[in-house]
Amino acid sequence: MRVPLELRRAYKLLNHGPTTLVTSAAHGRTNVMAVAWAMPIDFEPPKVAVVIAEGTLTHELVKASGEITLCVPTRAQLDSVYAVGSVSGRDEDKWASSGLRAAPASRVQAPLVEGCVAWLECRVLPEPDIQRKYDLFIAEVVAAWVEDSVWKDGGWDFSAGEEYRPIHHVAGGVFFAAGERMQAHKPEGAKK
Amino acid sequence: MRVPLELRRAYKLLNHGPTTLVTSAAHGRTNVMAVAWAMPIDFEPPKVAVVIAEGTLTHELVKASGEITLCVPTRAQLDSVYAVGSVSGRDEDKWASSGLRAAPASRVQAPLVEGCVAWLECRVLPEPDIQRKYDLFIAEVVAAWVEDSVWKDGGWDFSAGEEYRPIHHVAGGVFFAAGERMQAHKPEGAKK
Repeated sequence: MRVPLELRRAYKLLNHGPTTLVTSAAHGRTNVMAVAWAMPIDFEPPKVAVVIAEGTLTHELVKASGEITLCVPTRAQLDSVYAVGSVSGRDEDKWASSGLRAAPASRVQAPLVEGCVAWLECRVLPEPDIQRKYDLFIAEVVAAWVEDSVWKDGGWDFSAGEEYRPIHHVAGGVFFAAGERMQAHKPEGAKK
Repeated sequence: MRVPLELRRAYKLLNHGPTTLVTSAAHGRTNVMAVAWAMPIDFEPPKVAVVIAEGTLTHELVKASGEITLCVPTRAQLDSVYAVGSVSGRDEDKWASSGLRAAPASRVQAPLVEGCVAWLECRVLPEPDIQRKYDLFIAEVVAAWVEDSVWKDGGWDFSAGEEYRPIHHVAGGVFFAAGERMQAHKPEGAKK
């Protein structure tokens, strides 16, 4: 079940570097696209940086609306994620072709993707210079959600099933699943 | 053994979102810091975006030198990575305290970290506005290296040993190792 997460914890949804699904909505339509180049850039208020290539339908819709969602898909969605990163919403309705399903978000018009394990609703901040030069969008997270079956004591827990693990794209459809959990030892003299 | 990698393939070293070690050199000293908020933002010439918080010694050295390296550490280095992300180079010599060892880079003064599996030598691009507002640095990759025992046929291969796997920080010293390799099916109608 999708449950709200406090904004100050939203960075934890992306901190490990998973590949994301970016959704957008404008001009009476929506789109979904796989994006590996997305990361947190601030804790509170949480902000993200995302590369959305010029020429894509998502780029056009995001520039028109100033809104995106970042959703964290799972290994159960592997082929769908690769598909929506490989074909354009200009050529086909990617919701229909991928089997991914949209659900309404709470604060933005861009939809959430069902079956993911985390969702960030975001408003793009006005940084036209780096958008133009690098296709780089800075956005503030205005709502965050997590799948409660994989979230225990304020962190990820995939004991509910391997199929829930986030995926990390390398290239050409090769991904790593998020793997073994490890706890580092706290160093002497650490301030945090 | 560290071997050179063509710049056009350098994005593959970070595309899966591993936590990195950022090194810097200026004022006659060097430093090393763990950074989870780093990602590729372009293929060729390859560029990266990295958050380096104001107030850190690394921030000061990078602003002075305009150079960094991004190194990809392994699970064998777990505690050292957490340590150099938790203590400041202003308080102690992190090379001595962490056990990490520096090796000379080829194109920048900032050193490479021995025992990592990938290395990107980078020159910071002049973007003072987003540096100031978001602590976000854009850099061009000017040399790339990979550990040849984990690189086969142009991609990662960790069959040489689990200890070589990159690590992905969530929060508070909890990391995921890069896990199972998966190949997605190529969708019909894909252009790439």
